[in-house]
Amino acid sequence: MSKLRVAVVGYGNIGKYAIEALRVADDMEIAGVVRRNASVVPDEIKDLKVVSNIDELGKVDVAILATPTRDVPATASAMLAKGICTVDSYDIHGGIWDLRLQLDAIAKKNGTAAIISAGWDPGTDSVIRTLLMAMAPKGITYTNFGPGMSMGHSVVARSKKGVKNALSMTIPLGTSVHRRMVYVELEDGATLEEVTKEIKADDYFAHDETHVIPVASVDDVRDMGHGVLLERKGVSGKTQNQLFSFTMKINNPALTAQVLVSCCRAVKKQNPGCYTLPEIAPMDLLAGDREALIKSLV
Amino acid sequence: MSKLRVAVVGYGNIGKYAIEALRVADDMEIAGVVRRNASVVPDEIKDLKVVSNIDELGKVDVAILATPTRDVPATASAMLAKGICTVDSYDIHGGIWDLRLQLDAIAKKNGTAAIISAGWDPGTDSVIRTLLMAMAPKGITYTNFGPGMSMGHSVVARSKKGVKNALSMTIPLGTSVHRRMVYVELEDGATLEEVTKEIKADDYFAHDETHVIPVASVDDVRDMGHGVLLERKGVSGKTQNQLFSFTMKINNPALTAQVLVSCCRAVKKQNPGCYTLPEIAPMDLLAGDREALIKSLV
Repeated sequence: MSKLRVAVVGYGNIGKYAIEALRVADDMEIAGVVRRNASVVPDEIKDLKVVSNIDELGKVDVAILATPTRDVPATASAMLAKGICTVDSYDIHGGIWDLRLQLDAIAKKNGTAAIISAGWDPGTDSVIRTLLMAMAPKGITYTNFGPGMSMGHSVVARSKKGVKNALSMTIPLGTSVHRRMVYVELEDGATLEEVTKEIKADDYFAHDETHVIPVASVDDVRDMGHGVLLERKGVSGKTQNQLFSFTMKINNPALTAQVLVSCCRAVKKQNPGCYTLPEIAPMDLLAGDREALIKSLV
Repeated sequence: MSKLRVAVVGYGNIGKYAIEALRVADDMEIAGVVRRNASVVPDEIKDLKVVSNIDELGKVDVAILATPTRDVPATASAMLAKGICTVDSYDIHGGIWDLRLQLDAIAKKNGTAAIISAGWDPGTDSVIRTLLMAMAPKGITYTNFGPGMSMGHSVVARSKKGVKNALSMTIPLGTSVHRRMVYVELEDGATLEEVTKEIKADDYFAHDETHVIPVASVDDVRDMGHGVLLERKGVSGKTQNQLFSFTMKINNPALTAQVLVSCCRAVKKQNPGCYTLPEIAPMDLLAGDREALIKSLV
């Protein structure tokens, strides 16, 4: 069987872990890395082709989009138009449906496919939420994040006047309620009181219990561990009190990257179009012989 | 939209709960119940058509096979040959692949589809195991069952000389190791010592820690609650110590029946052939508009 040729577009945290996951995937080979400034090549990818335009990589079956999430729609559109399948971890929940519509049209026109929002939330958590809904159609699912760093909230806290650096931790309080613990390095002359007021006033923090804590070095408290607790109490048929819980404690970018890499296999097996992860048969994510997989997993 | 016409074949525990789940599924209607002796009609299905041959029910889109698991291959084959889709909860793990092959050929020949082994284990647990494998390809998944009644083990215990009635509970000890707690009603003249020896010697019990406990009435200790704890510790890419856990505490036949009912939707959306649950897109299990589902679940 010929190996799947996969390119990684963008080389931040997700891109770095995606390359690691591709290196241990026996059924894939790395076509190369695409980044804006191709002349900067970190040591650990010195053996790979690093280019600024994907056309320089020859045949590419799938592109893993590890760009900032806001760039995903444009980058995915461009890749799909070239006939390259894409997988991404687009994580703006309110924009997922529109992105799916947009990419679906381009993918179908070009006989290719995309899997979007394929990290862990949105992503594998979405698959679990869907499955729990099928198991107990009536009821409530709570998604409790953390403890772990929120990139979005950290960026917002960092943007405030008087803040040199910031890290916002999401702490789960249950029933989808979260506390924000914001660790800040203050600029000279800034006061904790003022910075706290600014942060708490922002819409990103205004609705949650928020604590702002000064630290000497944000870098010293940074850790890429994260977690989730998904809980559902629901009704199967007419039977009440069916109880379900899924929890994980994981390295955040490593899991996101692994899900993206597993999706590279799945995207090649789909009909032209754009899909979210719950629209994909989970078995399509795995390498290997279907008979052996079914015998060991089902 | 016209409703899916679903028949329930067999009316034991699973059949009973399947009817309950169908009654609350707005997108389905009950074509009827098929049972060997159609003249025996329990009160709660007096409003339904109860027949001994599915041909008497008119158009049937999907048949839920709620027969004993050993009868599934023959019953499914017969239904598929009539062009009726089938869903079943066939639970003999060693026979799943062969059943899939057998039904796949019949389904394709007749332009219809089957989803097999679609309870909770095999079934939704299989989906979780598959998903965890995609999230952390290296590692071990432990499936810990219980506390809950094992039908298979209860039947074996009941078959022993001197046993009037028996119930075998599966108790999870972790890392997929289980204890068997066997509650027995003894026949007059039987001794606990002899019955215990007989039970422990059977291959069903010989490999597990087994306790045999006499009770005045097995019926008084029977409860259909069950549970599972699925645990995986694995590697995403090159990142170790990714920790995952899924647990549920559920009414066993109610969950099995609900999964079967949800599969009635999914089976109609598949190409002709036979599928296990991890080969089905989870979103196909749900009723309702795809846009609304994606917006609320992804």
